Amino acid sequence: MARTQGSHAGTTGPKVREAALRLFAQHGYAAVSMRQIAREVGVQAGALYLYTPDKQALLFELMRGHMEELLADWTPPGGGPLAELEDFARHHIRFHLDRPELVFIAYMELRNLSPENFAVIEGLRGTYEARLEDILRAGLVEGVFDVADLRLATMGLISMLTGVTTWFRDGGRLTRADVETIYWDMVRRAVGAQAAGAV
Amino acid sequence: MARTQGSHAGTTGPKVREAALRLFAQHGYAAVSMRQIAREVGVQAGALYLYTPDKQALLFELMRGHMEELLADWTPPGGGPLAELEDFARHHIRFHLDRPELVFIAYMELRNLSPENFAVIEGLRGTYEARLEDILRAGLVEGVFDVADLRLATMGLISMLTGVTTWFRDGGRLTRADVETIYWDMVRRAVGAQAAGAV
Repeated sequence: MARTQGSHAGTTGPKVREAALRLFAQHGYAAVSMRQIAREVGVQAGALYLYTPDKQALLFELMRGHMEELLADWTPPGGGPLAELEDFARHHIRFHLDRPELVFIAYMELRNLSPENFAVIEGLRGTYEARLEDILRAGLVEGVFDVADLRLATMGLISMLTGVTTWFRDGGRLTRADVETIYWDMVRRAVGAQAAGAV
Repeated sequence: MARTQGSHAGTTGPKVREAALRLFAQHGYAAVSMRQIAREVGVQAGALYLYTPDKQALLFELMRGHMEELLADWTPPGGGPLAELEDFARHHIRFHLDRPELVFIAYMELRNLSPENFAVIEGLRGTYEARLEDILRAGLVEGVFDVADLRLATMGLISMLTGVTTWFRDGGRLTRADVETIYWDMVRRAVGAQAAGAV
């Protein structure tokens, strides 16, 4: 445990976020107190307020940071809708498998965001979903995808891909690369696309 | 609010479960006390123990009841794998859209089950997943489905179908029937099946 004295914003700030993430994921936001977070970090309860105005701000920063990282971590690679859809799907699985606690909180604790904070997170989610919807639309226009409803295809595919985090364990029957490839095949089929190279 | 006196097991038992469901879904299991549940039902805290041994038992009963109802509510209709997959997919969406709070708790509160209770719920989930996997296997054997991995297809489809509960709202752009039909089409394509009647 870190010493109570001698903490610096540079190291303590991230520790506060990590402790909050761990405790929120384990017990749920409503059951965790600022005092518990301070104890986990190893600072006095009062000192926590040097790093964050309150518990709501901590939750919001975790969720906003998660979404901003997701948005910053991927750019469309070009190469047409099929190549972009494959890259999006593989990246989505990889990114979320690396962050199971953030995935859990991002879904579970939406109910505990203030209305203003909820609106910001919803906006970021909308931006992310729009990227997939844009790829699907482009594929529809080019005639390489067959999708009845762009919005539903977007939501259906994101649910399917994120769901990997609920059951995948490293060291199991399949590697992450296997899972990516098999899911990509399901995604491709779901949008009515032929495999690359198929006639 | 119900009167504290004059409660009977026949009406109070279900009220206790409903109150627990509502409070767990709103605040999370760890943040809800037996005292709060008693207050919500309108009985004394001590009287609650006439209906349930403890909070863990309440959570377990909610989750077990949900899974047992899901299992009892659907039987394979026959007619071959394609017809059975369609019926399974449509039923899954309908059943879960009717119970958003239970869906939320069934995912979120797995972490708060005792190991013995967790094993029971995992067993029931396994039974449900096996139904879908059996349909997919039968379709694979008959050559009407093309699935690279039965287990991953099962988990991928269940994630996609359950995900409807996170965004669907009655009175929106699409009816439940529209959503069922569009999702069924994505499910059918994802397992490489032709539409019924197609050559």
